[in-house]
Amino acid sequence: MTEQFRTAIGASDATRIRLLGQDVATDLMGKVGFGELAFWLVAGARPTPGQTRVFEAVLVALADHGFTPTAIAARLTYLSAPESVQGALAAGLLGGGSRFLGVTEDAGRFLAEVLDGGNWDGLDEAAWDKVALRAVKGARAAGRFVPGLGHPVHKEEDPRTPALLAIAEEEGLRGPHLRLFEAIGRVHPQVLGRQLPLNGAGVCGAALADLGLPVDLLRGFALLARAAGLLGHLAEERRDPIAMDIYRTVDRNTIYLPDQE
Amino acid sequence: MTEQFRTAIGASDATRIRLLGQDVATDLMGKVGFGELAFWLVAGARPTPGQTRVFEAVLVALADHGFTPTAIAARLTYLSAPESVQGALAAGLLGGGSRFLGVTEDAGRFLAEVLDGGNWDGLDEAAWDKVALRAVKGARAAGRFVPGLGHPVHKEEDPRTPALLAIAEEEGLRGPHLRLFEAIGRVHPQVLGRQLPLNGAGVCGAALADLGLPVDLLRGFALLARAAGLLGHLAEERRDPIAMDIYRTVDRNTIYLPDQE
Amino acid sequence: MTEQFRTAIGASDATRIRLLGQDVATDLMGKVGFGELAFWLVAGARPTPGQTRVFEAVLVALADHGFTPTAIAARLTYLSAPESVQGALAAGLLGGGSRFLGVTEDAGRFLAEVLDGGNWDGLDEAAWDKVALRAVKGARAAGRFVPGLGHPVHKEEDPRTPALLAIAEEEGLRGPHLRLFEAIGRVHPQVLGRQLPLNGAGVCGAALADLGLPVDLLRGFALLARAAGLLGHLAEERRDPIAMDIYRTVDRNTIYLPDQE
Amino acid sequence: MTEQFRTAIGASDATRIRLLGQDVATDLMGKVGFGELAFWLVAGARPTPGQTRVFEAVLVALADHGFTPTAIAARLTYLSAPESVQGALAAGLLGGGSRFLGVTEDAGRFLAEVLDGGNWDGLDEAAWDKVALRAVKGARAAGRFVPGLGHPVHKEEDPRTPALLAIAEEEGLRGPHLRLFEAIGRVHPQVLGRQLPLNGAGVCGAALADLGLPVDLLRGFALLARAAGLLGHLAEERRDPIAMDIYRTVDRNTIYLPDQE
Repeated sequence: MTEQFRTAIGASDATRIRLLGQDVATDLMGKVGFGELAFWLVAGARPTPGQTRVFEAVLVALADHGFTPTAIAARLTYLSAPESVQGALAAGLLGGGSRFLGVTEDAGRFLAEVLDGGNWDGLDEAAWDKVALRAVKGARAAGRFVPGLGHPVHKEEDPRTPALLAIAEEEGLRGPHLRLFEAIGRVHPQVLGRQLPLNGAGVCGAALADLGLPVDLLRGFALLARAAGLLGHLAEERRDPIAMDIYRTVDRNTIYLPDQE
Repeated sequence: MTEQFRTAIGASDATRIRLLGQDVATDLMGKVGFGELAFWLVAGARPTPGQTRVFEAVLVALADHGFTPTAIAARLTYLSAPESVQGALAAGLLGGGSRFLGVTEDAGRFLAEVLDGGNWDGLDEAAWDKVALRAVKGARAAGRFVPGLGHPVHKEEDPRTPALLAIAEEEGLRGPHLRLFEAIGRVHPQVLGRQLPLNGAGVCGAALADLGLPVDLLRGFALLARAAGLLGHLAEERRDPIAMDIYRTVDRNTIYLPDQE
Repeated sequence: MTEQFRTAIGASDATRIRLLGQDVATDLMGKVGFGELAFWLVAGARPTPGQTRVFEAVLVALADHGFTPTAIAARLTYLSAPESVQGALAAGLLGGGSRFLGVTEDAGRFLAEVLDGGNWDGLDEAAWDKVALRAVKGARAAGRFVPGLGHPVHKEEDPRTPALLAIAEEEGLRGPHLRLFEAIGRVHPQVLGRQLPLNGAGVCGAALADLGLPVDLLRGFALLARAAGLLGHLAEERRDPIAMDIYRTVDRNTIYLPDQE
Repeated sequence: MTEQFRTAIGASDATRIRLLGQDVATDLMGKVGFGELAFWLVAGARPTPGQTRVFEAVLVALADHGFTPTAIAARLTYLSAPESVQGALAAGLLGGGSRFLGVTEDAGRFLAEVLDGGNWDGLDEAAWDKVALRAVKGARAAGRFVPGLGHPVHKEEDPRTPALLAIAEEEGLRGPHLRLFEAIGRVHPQVLGRQLPLNGAGVCGAALADLGLPVDLLRGFALLARAAGLLGHLAEERRDPIAMDIYRTVDRNTIYLPDQE
């Protein structure tokens, strides 16, 4: 006997395509934005307009900022296999791991672990600072990094952080993850001995966690955002290619030092 | 001396992240939707609200409809390497090739080739039918398929096709690619001897081409849309896994027939 | 000023291709086996004939055993994008993560951590059993699994384990990682309360570690071995396709249960 | 009712792992080389020692020669996601498309199309030159490139070409594909008006075709060879990293020229 395979996502028959309990053609197309649909697909529940605005602000914040190792990898792959856009896009996304895109998920998970099971309604700043101080001290004691602190370029402030906090506040979605993250920004110098900025990847993770999205998949949203940025890089590579120049620059500056000869 | 690497996409300095000539924090976050940004990144120009609505309707139409070979491949990869969401997503996108997601691009390219260099203003249906008839006959004579015709499930009509045509009409964006595609839908039986539906992937390709997006990258939009669908599948696989059952079903029904023993 | 990029792997000029300090055309082609070269590329030193035999036995042991989630993912990807062999191969390899191919690396690393810094010459079985007992108790106390124990199919014995041990013994390469692994096989029931087989992935990790290969890259050898198996699956999929039948089986047995409708 | 899924590759039961009709533990491990097994997996028949030697010489010729766009893409991906060796390897392989690794397959397919269905025993050089001349003229007339001619670095001669021809001759495996390829090397200047070298990727494709391997999968062998080279790059990136320097070089030499601002 064969298993049966359950899904709540979608199914088609001769006359209808159903997605998330809706009819794609009559209920979704032209009526639901793409960001809204992406949220719905992952959360299994339709976001409110305010949730959608915060969610899309996160995707916009994470989509791209010029040449990154992932954008360069995608362009080099497109140079080598221009017939396979999916391969170039996949190559770029495969860099979305622990070191770069991972911070969003790490920050969301860290904050969720601290908040786990508690009731956090109506805390004031001083109370949040106490929670944050305990969390930062705990991480320090365990030899763990506090994810979301520091940025190689934005050494004073990451401009995305206040922007996203303001949008969340406007939409009434500045929840416990964001409040704890802000408090960490206030108290960490007492523990770490220096002032680090709250970075954009981290605040995005906090905002996504406040939206109720699963913390184990927050990296997935960074990947979705980055997919749009990578398509931009591939389109530009078609119009105005630079991948061959990058390769030539590496090739011209290579020193071959065999271990034995 | 080293090359210099031009980009119009974005760049960061200590205080600003610029993207597409805008300031990400002050001009884009909370003000631009994710679909709108994706269009802008690829086209290099900001879409109008009408263009954004048609574009997002295309992304919604292509995002997902349940278990497909790509969704199953992504779930099996997630089963094998759950620590690497990027790997599972990439594995799913790698199926976005000629056979499945390719139709969108093939249809857009086919229509663009027929329209190439002509002036198509103010043609009436009869005139479009003549153009379409010549195109279908030409494809037949060259032994080429006409992309965008026929669907394994929607044998009479693909519900996404009239839906997208209506949205494009509402937005004043039912342009020559869509009109030619519709005409192909009317005239192809005269040449092919049977009535096939205009499929959703094809009408999406026609609509994207009418939006002025580069036909060589139309597959990229199908991939972006599918990225959202695949994240939905990975989220569901976490909540309610079926990949192991799929594997077991295959394993249980395997017949090993070695060529020699 | 531009960095310079060092490599000891290879370089080309108009008349020569150098690899690992050798001339590819005159020193390597026809004189060095592929497995031997793969070892050399990663280790930076040419393996002895005995090391090559053990190494190739590991690759043979890990190459394939029929339908696995990774082989199915590769075949489904090939079905969707038959023009991109590299995409189907990559999709299959992306399943080479923690759950399936990871055991080889996990076992090698676990054993290397236990052995770290010690001098293990001339220990007898009883002495190895003491070391193993301490290691298994330590893992148990830390709530960690002991990698390399147990197999879903080979519940009594994995036939690859005695085979690889015998080959390593013949070549004088049954070193401390393999001896510790064997000892774990003898002593673990005292701690875990039941007898589990030493699995093939684990013994391969132990053998690779005894060959002096970097434990952080042992998964890479499992991936190289699996690349050959996946090519076999793609070749068979061309000759005798089953991916569409797998997809149809899933599709036919899908139950669509939307969360809301 | 469920399909049944045939395979001739392998299957496991509690006590045995069968692969290609053999017992992995008793018939293959320690007795069959890895290159030999890879050939067997794809061809479905065990290669002779001579076939194995030519096949491994091809894999050695294609494995690596220093920094290529694919090696750089793999290293940049490893920099971004060091926890996922499979992702870095996959990213590198995804560049194995039409432009770089594709030549091997294109050359094999081109030669096979010319030879299709003919009987080519006992032709002398003059007769091969006639066949080659017709083929090159035909390609020229059709506006097609002749794959396997020319190399950006080896402008006079690719050293792999005479080396592989000599090995094939030694093993009695210099068959019609190789002979036709050599003849193309002799006659193409009459048609193309200039002397181009027969490149290594092309001669490898000809040799693989003479070994009876499926021409639609020749790219797969280039990918298998490259997988070993990429592992070498990842191992070196661990020991002596350069990916961050490549990224910094690009970053430092970026000019941001937004289309509008």
